[in-house]
Amino acid sequence: MSDIKKLGQSWIFNWFFGFSQIPTDEDCCIYMKSVLCCAKGDGVLSQQEKDWAIGFCASWGVADWVIEELKAYDADEDIKDVIARSPQVSIAQRDLLLTAIRASAADGEIHEQEKKKILQMASIIGVKEEIVEQLEQLHQEELALRQKRVKLLYPEKSPY
Amino acid sequence: MSDIKKLGQSWIFNWFFGFSQIPTDEDCCIYMKSVLCCAKGDGVLSQQEKDWAIGFCASWGVADWVIEELKAYDADEDIKDVIARSPQVSIAQRDLLLTAIRASAADGEIHEQEKKKILQMASIIGVKEEIVEQLEQLHQEELALRQKRVKLLYPEKSPY
Repeated sequence: MSDIKKLGQSWIFNWFFGFSQIPTDEDCCIYMKSVLCCAKGDGVLSQQEKDWAIGFCASWGVADWVIEELKAYDADEDIKDVIARSPQVSIAQRDLLLTAIRASAADGEIHEQEKKKILQMASIIGVKEEIVEQLEQLHQEELALRQKRVKLLYPEKSPY
Repeated sequence: MSDIKKLGQSWIFNWFFGFSQIPTDEDCCIYMKSVLCCAKGDGVLSQQEKDWAIGFCASWGVADWVIEELKAYDADEDIKDVIARSPQVSIAQRDLLLTAIRASAADGEIHEQEKKKILQMASIIGVKEEIVEQLEQLHQEELALRQKRVKLLYPEKSPY
């Protein structure tokens, strides 16, 4: 991998997750599969939700095979089995829940049904309801700050 | 450029800037040169500040030549001349100021001297003091939210 690519990856993993090292492609793939399983739950994963999650993963500069594998992924596995494949993802329960919440919001509001599903998945992977509420709150704050930023930077017209 | 690379680029430009298209490498280079000129002002640009800015640019998946050119860039040009080279960057004054503020904070607190420098550059490119204050406020909110996120996701130990 080129040093320049690593530079961008270091930056982005640090910004979003506070990491000081670049995760392996294998871990990124396992992580995002667990996100897709979580966002799907026992229900439906919309194309928009899946696209959002895969786009986020692509922005980390992962290898092409990761994206290809995620695109083809049905997200029908037991989330506990997926997580167990990586010691790193095994301590990223809250992280993957936040990304699942963000993905669930990609096609508009998060519906009650979706909230219930996230709570259910959280309970399966051992995250308390009170933490899920904090993650949902954080997600709302992220959305609001992004909106505020875009409006402040380009009040009239976006250059792109 | 591969479709997978474009996927990641679309995602990241949308997340940070609300763009619905991917900027050209030329515009990214001009934009980041203007950021470096702004962060340097008539003073000093630390290596940490420069690295932060170049890392952010690398995370957009720009071509290698952009990063090479930025690394070698002295940031001694007149910021107005730099901006004038791109119609897109010419409407991104607030945007480049925010990124310059973020870069200035990369080596710790933003000092009074740096705040003064940012204000001076803002005045040169036609951004009012009250908007600069809003950009600085936004930057503080971004920092706080990032810190809150990292702490909530990994209260004990980061996997990377």
